[in-house]
Amino acid sequence: MPRSRFSGSLSWPRFDVVIDMGNPSLNRTIDGFVMIGTVAAARVAAEEAYHRINHLRKGTFPGHTLHDSLKKMCKEGAYWGTIAELYVGMEYGMRRIRGKSDWKNALLGGAVIGALISVVSKNKGEKVIEDAIKGGAVATAAKFLNCAY
Amino acid sequence: MPRSRFSGSLSWPRFDVVIDMGNPSLNRTIDGFVMIGTVAAARVAAEEAYHRINHLRKGTFPGHTLHDSLKKMCKEGAYWGTIAELYVGMEYGMRRIRGKSDWKNALLGGAVIGALISVVSKNKGEKVIEDAIKGGAVATAAKFLNCAY
Repeated sequence: MPRSRFSGSLSWPRFDVVIDMGNPSLNRTIDGFVMIGTVAAARVAAEEAYHRINHLRKGTFPGHTLHDSLKKMCKEGAYWGTIAELYVGMEYGMRRIRGKSDWKNALLGGAVIGALISVVSKNKGEKVIEDAIKGGAVATAAKFLNCAY
Repeated sequence: MPRSRFSGSLSWPRFDVVIDMGNPSLNRTIDGFVMIGTVAAARVAAEEAYHRINHLRKGTFPGHTLHDSLKKMCKEGAYWGTIAELYVGMEYGMRRIRGKSDWKNALLGGAVIGALISVVSKNKGEKVIEDAIKGGAVATAAKFLNCAY
C-alpha cells in the first residue's frame, strides 16, 4: 500500500557577522556589542510581536506604530550592547593583567559595570555601592552557571 | 647595605564542597544550588557589611540585628539556589534531549524559568509571557558573554 509521508524541520536563522579590527581586545568588545545588542533587540522584537498579536486578537489598536517598535529595538540594542562591550573589555583586560581566567575577573568586571550603570542612572552614594555588589554577584553567578559544566 | 623587604599576598578563601548523589543530572543541579546559593548569600553578606560599616561611621544604630542579616542570607541563598538548580536541571535535560550544547538550551531554559518565577510571584497573563521573554534573553546573553571566548 503506497503511503505518503511529510517530513519537515524548522531551523533557526543563521547570520554570521565578522568584523576584524586588527586587535584581539577591540575584536572582542565589538563582538560583545554585536552579540548582546542583537539579543536585546530580539527581546524587544519578541515582546512587541506578542503585544501586536494580542491587540489583533482583541481587535484593538496597538497604540504605537512599527516605527516606534523599531526605535525601541535600536535603543535597547545599543544600550545593552554598550554595557556588554564595556564588560567584555574589562573582563579581558583583567584576564591579561592577572594572567588567569576565572570567576574573579567576572566579579570585578561585573562590580565595575554595576557601579557605572548606577552612576549613569544618576544614583549616588549607597545605591552605587549596592549596584556594584549586585553587578558583581550577577556576573559571578552567570560565569559559574555557564562555565562550570 | 642590608635592606629589609616585606612581601605579602592576599589570597581568596577556597572552599571545596563535594556532594556525590550518584547521578550526573542530580549532581549538576545540587552543584548549581550550592554555587548560586553561595553567591546570593555572599551578595547579601557584602551589602549588610557595607550598611553596618556605614552605620558605625555615622554612629547610628543599624536597625536590624546580626540574626536578621543571617536570616536574609539564608533566605536569598535558598531562593536563588533553587532557581539555579531548576535552570541547570532544565538546561542539562535539553542538552540531553537535543544532543547539542548551544545557546538554544539557555534560551529555552531561561524562558521556562522566567515564566516560572513570574507565576510564583503571582503574575498572570501578559506579564508571565514578558518575563519568559526576559528570562530567555538574559540566559542567552549570559551564555554568549561567558562561552564565546
